[in-house]
Amino acid sequence: MQNSGQFLLELFLMFGAGKLLAEVFERLRQPAVIGEIVAGVLLGPAALALVHPTDLTGGLAEMGAIFLLFTVGLETEPRALLRVGGTAALAAALGVIAPLALGFAYMKLIHRGPIESLFVAAAMVATSVGITARVLGDLGVLETRAARVILAAAVIDDILGMIVLAVVSSLSAGRINYWQLVVASAEAIAFALFVLFFGSRLVASLRPTVARLQARNSAFALSVLLCLGLSLASVRIGMAAIIGAFLAGLALADHSERWRLAENAHPVMEFLAPFFFVLLGAQMDPGVLRRPGVLTIALVISLLAIASKLLGCGLGALRLGPRDALRVGLGMVPRGEVGLIVAAVGLRLHTISPSIYAVVIIMCMATTLFAPPLLRLALRSSPAPPSPVG
Amino acid sequence: MQNSGQFLLELFLMFGAGKLLAEVFERLRQPAVIGEIVAGVLLGPAALALVHPTDLTGGLAEMGAIFLLFTVGLETEPRALLRVGGTAALAAALGVIAPLALGFAYMKLIHRGPIESLFVAAAMVATSVGITARVLGDLGVLETRAARVILAAAVIDDILGMIVLAVVSSLSAGRINYWQLVVASAEAIAFALFVLFFGSRLVASLRPTVARLQARNSAFALSVLLCLGLSLASVRIGMAAIIGAFLAGLALADHSERWRLAENAHPVMEFLAPFFFVLLGAQMDPGVLRRPGVLTIALVISLLAIASKLLGCGLGALRLGPRDALRVGLGMVPRGEVGLIVAAVGLRLHTISPSIYAVVIIMCMATTLFAPPLLRLALRSSPAPPSPVG
Repeated sequence: MQNSGQFLLELFLMFGAGKLLAEVFERLRQPAVIGEIVAGVLLGPAALALVHPTDLTGGLAEMGAIFLLFTVGLETEPRALLRVGGTAALAAALGVIAPLALGFAYMKLIHRGPIESLFVAAAMVATSVGITARVLGDLGVLETRAARVILAAAVIDDILGMIVLAVVSSLSAGRINYWQLVVASAEAIAFALFVLFFGSRLVASLRPTVARLQARNSAFALSVLLCLGLSLASVRIGMAAIIGAFLAGLALADHSERWRLAENAHPVMEFLAPFFFVLLGAQMDPGVLRRPGVLTIALVISLLAIASKLLGCGLGALRLGPRDALRVGLGMVPRGEVGLIVAAVGLRLHTISPSIYAVVIIMCMATTLFAPPLLRLALRSSPAPPSPVG
Repeated sequence: MQNSGQFLLELFLMFGAGKLLAEVFERLRQPAVIGEIVAGVLLGPAALALVHPTDLTGGLAEMGAIFLLFTVGLETEPRALLRVGGTAALAAALGVIAPLALGFAYMKLIHRGPIESLFVAAAMVATSVGITARVLGDLGVLETRAARVILAAAVIDDILGMIVLAVVSSLSAGRINYWQLVVASAEAIAFALFVLFFGSRLVASLRPTVARLQARNSAFALSVLLCLGLSLASVRIGMAAIIGAFLAGLALADHSERWRLAENAHPVMEFLAPFFFVLLGAQMDPGVLRRPGVLTIALVISLLAIASKLLGCGLGALRLGPRDALRVGLGMVPRGEVGLIVAAVGLRLHTISPSIYAVVIIMCMATTLFAPPLLRLALRSSPAPPSPVG
């Protein structure tokens, strides 16, 4: 077994440097998650070589991603989704299709393999709800029309992004088999729809059992078990583990308040997620950016990622008028956890190369750094939200 | 890197079977922790062979032990300790010396090596506060004199147990070097006293800094960093990691309420601790109990563990009268986490053999199963606690 001192040293450095740089980035009004990735790049084999991807750090990072998506799911009430208007749904759908199509087309244009191209396109799909919500909250405009559309669209987009990842991660390396693509899509959509429509009811039917359990905090224990179980099921049917974790969160979202699930899952996520983001950084070799062409690809992919959301989501929200459409488009630009997870899955499955892994990380960081200042600008020019006193 | 499906399967089985058997044992009015150990024995290489001690499961288990002792520390306010009466201190001290002396003497008598003998004796030292407190709470007698002495003594005994473990775990395998024993004791006591007397004040001086931090839940992040840092420091100066975790908890105990530390640390502990207990069971090969003499040793060690606490603590509490002295003695009998951690440390350092590891596990389970029913009996025969209405 690994030396306990070495193991604790790596954990201490990962957690400490991650939280330190997260604090620095918060003070620069930038997303904390970028600080954690930068900490990883610094600690990783390419720089200080103090932290290494091992079975143990990799396992902790995977648990971090699982708990991250589990808490995102817990905060997404399926019923709230079924209530949102058509504008948000349209903005979300076009905002998924545009980056998927543009990303795939560009990657094919530069002669990358079909599966690698699909992975990059999939990583460009999902908006990071957290960063946008933070900007909206900071400016106190959560109640404006544009903000409500952004938040609803971001949630739908998360689910669509999960389905895209499910399909992509279930394709075996090599050429795309279109029949396999259809089967994988059907499987992923069926799994997601089943959990969306029946998950919450199935969990509700467990309520009397949970009430009879005698162990302390047993509802939380059961919810963690469901999260691990659906993660395992996802892997078994050939998808990424986090899909199951996200769906487990969705199925439990309606019961989260009663059983204090989010309250319990948050500290676990806060402890484990930094290992995921720091290891993401540690797995990136900034040296690959010096290889011919890689920086150009990173630049083009980042620009496409920004343009495709602006156009796709903006077009979808055009009936709100051009100003609000621009706000919705900007609000949907930041990519975060989900894009990074797609990259990590691709790297592990050896379907994307280290260079393209670095490209995806750069794209996630660029969109996340680019959007918030412009979003602030676009939102400040808005008329004050209607005050409740009239 | 390890296959993600295999890893998730092991985690799912460990967590699921652990929680299931914990629930079964709770319903049998037995400690949940024994259910988790039994789950490990069943899943481990000696039986179903579904769970294996690997870098990853071992690392999760170690994090579980670290968070377990961290939360125990968080719930032990140093100031409360300095207030407790001499009876509790005397009961605790004699209750530490008696098992240490009897355990060591018996192991030497049957010709085991000095370090292995010391490890077994050290594992017999620490009372498990949790199990006793649960019984006292269930019977609603937490306010009686005997209960208060038991709880105060159990806390002092935990700290003495930690010092004994610190000393024992810092001895290198082989013969005991008495000079080394003195240095290790001085080091451990100095470390513990430093944290006890200055830790809380040092943490208090950080308060303005913490108030200025902008990251979410940063007090919890800092406390986890202190826990990992002191665990690492413990390992570096040659002691077990959990000593540092326990001391970090102690240093933060006064600030736990303000910063909601226990609230945040508990879910992490509840998620990780089952991996520790299940792996404890998985590392035990019940087959060794069939080897000549091992079952006898387990029986004698268990009886000595029971008798030594009854006599030591009973004698220390004799000034309360024979009936309360018996209650205090019985209340101090259960051994739990700390004894099990000593065994795990010994197994990892190869200072105790697999047979003696099994003996310690049996001793912990036997004392934990033996004491609660007798304690209930002894407490029921007490006059009703004074009612607040008079």
